[in-house]
Amino acid sequence: MLSLKTIKIKIAETGIEHFCRRDSFLYDCLRDAGISLPSECGGHGVCGKCKVKVLPTSSLTPPSNAEKRLLTQEELENGIRLACQAKLIRNVEVAILSTIETYNIRLTKETQHCERDPKLIAKTFVISPERLGTSKGILEDLESTLNAQVRSLLVIKTLPQLSKKNEHRGKAIIYNDEILDLLPASSSRKLLGLAIDLGTTTLIGYLDNLENGENLAVSVQLNPQRVWGADIISRISIVMEKSKHLGALQKAVVKAINEMAKELCYKANVSCEDIYRIVVVGNPTMLHILAGVNPSSIAIAPFTPVFLRYLELSAKELGISQVHPACKISLMPHVSSYIGSDVLAGLISSGFLREMRALYVDLGTNGEIVLKAGKQIFATSTAAGPAFEGATIKRGSVAWQGAVDHVWIENGMLRYSVIGEREAETICGSGIVDLIAAALKSGLIDPRGRIVPPRRDGFEAFVREVDGERAVRLSEKVYLTQSDIRKIQLAKAAISTGIRILMEESGVSSDTLKIYIAGIFGTRINIHNAFKIGLLPSTSGENIVQLGNAAGLGARMILHNRNHERLINELRSCITTLELSTDSRFSDAFIENMSFPSENI
Amino acid sequence: MLSLKTIKIKIAETGIEHFCRRDSFLYDCLRDAGISLPSECGGHGVCGKCKVKVLPTSSLTPPSNAEKRLLTQEELENGIRLACQAKLIRNVEVAILSTIETYNIRLTKETQHCERDPKLIAKTFVISPERLGTSKGILEDLESTLNAQVRSLLVIKTLPQLSKKNEHRGKAIIYNDEILDLLPASSSRKLLGLAIDLGTTTLIGYLDNLENGENLAVSVQLNPQRVWGADIISRISIVMEKSKHLGALQKAVVKAINEMAKELCYKANVSCEDIYRIVVVGNPTMLHILAGVNPSSIAIAPFTPVFLRYLELSAKELGISQVHPACKISLMPHVSSYIGSDVLAGLISSGFLREMRALYVDLGTNGEIVLKAGKQIFATSTAAGPAFEGATIKRGSVAWQGAVDHVWIENGMLRYSVIGEREAETICGSGIVDLIAAALKSGLIDPRGRIVPPRRDGFEAFVREVDGERAVRLSEKVYLTQSDIRKIQLAKAAISTGIRILMEESGVSSDTLKIYIAGIFGTRINIHNAFKIGLLPSTSGENIVQLGNAAGLGARMILHNRNHERLINELRSCITTLELSTDSRFSDAFIENMSFPSENI
Ligand code: FES
Ligand code: FES
Repeated sequence: MLSLKTIKIKIAETGIEHFCRRDSFLYDCLRDAGISLPSECGGHGVCGKCKVKVLPTSSLTPPSNAEKRLLTQEELENGIRLACQAKLIRNVEVAILSTIETYNIRLTKETQHCERDPKLIAKTFVISPERLGTSKGILEDLESTLNAQVRSLLVIKTLPQLSKKNEHRGKAIIYNDEILDLLPASSSRKLLGLAIDLGTTTLIGYLDNLENGENLAVSVQLNPQRVWGADIISRISIVMEKSKHLGALQKAVVKAINEMAKELCYKANVSCEDIYRIVVVGNPTMLHILAGVNPSSIAIAPFTPVFLRYLELSAKELGISQVHPACKISLMPHVSSYIGSDVLAGLISSGFLREMRALYVDLGTNGEIVLKAGKQIFATSTAAGPAFEGATIKRGSVAWQGAVDHVWIENGMLRYSVIGEREAETICGSGIVDLIAAALKSGLIDPRGRIVPPRRDGFEAFVREVDGERAVRLSEKVYLTQSDIRKIQLAKAAISTGIRILMEESGVSSDTLKIYIAGIFGTRINIHNAFKIGLLPSTSGENIVQLGNAAGLGARMILHNRNHERLINELRSCITTLELSTDSRFSDAFIENMSFPSENI
Repeated sequence: MLSLKTIKIKIAETGIEHFCRRDSFLYDCLRDAGISLPSECGGHGVCGKCKVKVLPTSSLTPPSNAEKRLLTQEELENGIRLACQAKLIRNVEVAILSTIETYNIRLTKETQHCERDPKLIAKTFVISPERLGTSKGILEDLESTLNAQVRSLLVIKTLPQLSKKNEHRGKAIIYNDEILDLLPASSSRKLLGLAIDLGTTTLIGYLDNLENGENLAVSVQLNPQRVWGADIISRISIVMEKSKHLGALQKAVVKAINEMAKELCYKANVSCEDIYRIVVVGNPTMLHILAGVNPSSIAIAPFTPVFLRYLELSAKELGISQVHPACKISLMPHVSSYIGSDVLAGLISSGFLREMRALYVDLGTNGEIVLKAGKQIFATSTAAGPAFEGATIKRGSVAWQGAVDHVWIENGMLRYSVIGEREAETICGSGIVDLIAAALKSGLIDPRGRIVPPRRDGFEAFVREVDGERAVRLSEKVYLTQSDIRKIQLAKAAISTGIRILMEESGVSSDTLKIYIAGIFGTRINIHNAFKIGLLPSTSGENIVQLGNAAGLGARMILHNRNHERLINELRSCITTLELSTDSRFSDAFIENMSFPSENI
């Protein structure tokens, strides 16, 4: 039983030792030891985030193909490895490499250019009681000196402790008009903020230095609530079933935020106690659950939310403990039950508001669409569902190792690429869009989405029966069945109909539109194929901007400049929402849009 | 051992039974059973507050003299007894009689006349989500309907629970601009407030109905902090010695407030959960300790307090639990380190502010003095010490059973009355003032305070040696020694010098002054004797108003009308404080005032 033999791992930074089984992945061992390495791919060798440095190099299995692809030759020579790929052979010393990484380079650059005027600042002060005498309190003098108020008893209690040589000298942490904390003048405390994009599927966190606008670390996690259901409606159903589930869902996301804060601070080599503010954007349901407020009314007519407005709470009362005890958490405001603060944050971080005519599409589970026509802004959300995120599709998955991410026609054949350059196991959103486009072009499916009978034109090999259904098949394991295609048609019809109705409402045509695509799936997608299958209105390529995590960038911008918070509050009341489900144009257009475009294949 | 035999007490209201020793006082047994009866005299048969009804009447010792004096014949026939007087003989059933009592009738009447505009109100609301659709939250609609904000997450969380038949209907408890609590429309909850005068020696609490201005109950307790020291300076010294004593002092007063709230609600037969606001007045040191803020800086030059301003806190964070969890506690603002909110509250509740020329004297441990001369108001505090409260005087005590409370000359003899009409044990403040006046008149002491040798004029029997000191002796146990008289001279000089300097400062003479005397000692004192010994500047009797607990009445007025809170805040910045210790006039005048007036004896 050689594989059970115990291997010793020593953490270079702390000197602490842990023991693991031989042949287990280094990533898993470190997690067991309480060290969460960054990961965006769930340990599938795709993201390259789980880099560590090991000594000696011979203590691990040889580099995998993924490691050879994601690491440079120089890195490999220096003992840099991906912890999710390397297995333990013998005792090893591991350095965690708390390098500052950014999820999306573009985001970081942009905020560094944006003007800084943060709500959270530090100011030094000196108070001389001699000058005050008996008729003015130290507290009142502090408040008038700093032009801010103390609201917490804890802060008042620390005031007498700052006295030294007949003076009260220190550093005050000020949030808007409130003095949150008082520190000795000698304190080396930093001022950190956390920006969180709380999505239905993923949780993206940014740790920023509020004194210079710098991003220190980024972390992406799957939303742990997904085990209760993939979309908003299924999570609300769970709460409606039993109200105690609300507590469980809330605890799960709070735990994830705590872990994320810990991980981010570890990566950036800073103290969690230095985090004084959290800004959260997300859809209203996610933010109701985070606040522990029952979201059921969002799912029952008249679909009225409990709150849409900006909420400022104490992180502590939400159970968020991996921050300063006085840390504030701002839940950003929403437009309506289905247009959340994540969309508003995305609008301010993209160039959307500067354009005369622009379309903003978030290709996530909810499919939010916003259209700007001059001074008017219209928004809607479509229950597109998670088909483009690979969920509900038989062989679908998110974009991880083994997933087909691109499909094309080459020499009269369907060809594809697989994430991690290994055998194809599943197909992710971008692969699905490509496969539908290729199948349309090659005549494997007709514009109405029906898989046509094999025609002996070379492509016949790609149509097969699977489980009593016709399917377009790429490989043994990867195919789209007729009912998968129906689901994709429904999702595509929802989004394209939403876009069409907004365009009709505003009288804007697609060729004059700047189109902003937000969301992770939106970053990977082949835009031309998105035009071809009719998901997006066709326009020239240079009119398309693939934003990445626009919502998260917006949240960071709010951290660094109070004007963005004001902007979001103003913006939300300027947006006209359209309810597709009650719009008479919707059902007709929806049926029409179930078909794929035939002209431009 | 008959006296150890166990007697069963059954509480009529609850049916619960307790066991006690035969021959113990009923008052003590009830306290052991967790029932604090009201008491203002500490169980000395003076206040008559500890009334209970017993069945059968033969289960207790026969009525004492105190009971015969304090209870009517009808009451005694109906089994009404004073628990502090009656001892247990056999098994008994006791009804606690939660009658609504008021400490000072005058106070209650006055507030009922004052206009009501409380900061805490209840409003009903109906919200129809149908009207809101998806673009307005229930919370926002509630807030705009009620013109108030929700700041607590707990309140937001209750919002979904109020939904019934597509409507949200309920009652909101609103404090200023904040929605503190939401209740079902059917709730029978009352709106109660607690006014507390937190004195160095006594704690006086009033439970008021904020919906109609009515007082429901009053309670007077000794401040439990007195075991750490009689005056402010000794309590601060204790904290300076070890900072953990601050926590102990704070806990003691918080416990007393909790017990007081429980007792008041029990007496008024209401629920403690209905108390949503507490207003506290007191001197800055007492309020620092209540807030858990170290008051040491008040006792060390430059004597600067940590805070003087109005503080609004959550009762819960102070540890006050016998109230609604959302209950607010307002610590009223002060003028300076030694002129507290109790004085400000007394000024607004008396007629002081309406007079052109008026003097306000609080004859408590700190001896605060305020003088109004037209639009100018001057204030000072004298470290008079607790001599007039009987403390530091060999045979002195507070005004309880067995204390000499009045002394006069009758037929060439000193005569006296004793509280409880029993043998004289001690002498209280009013007795001390009278005895000094009588001793001056009869020549037993000279104007410089020296006890003169016996002169064989009939009074010689009243001068004796006690413990090697000459003393003016009323009875075997009651006398004032030469050093007692020196202490009284010091206290009297402090107060009269304070008054004189304020009068000089403002150019006001005593004959045009309206004089307000606040405090419990001030209520019992013989004003003419106070003139005679030079404690107060002499004026005609109708210019004197003995206010009783003016500070507590002021606190109640703040509960019932937000304008009084505003008034107090304005008032405190209009008052000019004089520091006697640094005033060159003080030491000369003080020495002069050590002597008693000789002209008007
Ligand atoms: S976690 Fe290792 S490459 Fe993604
Ligand atoms: S406690 Fe009984 S008379 Fe005072």
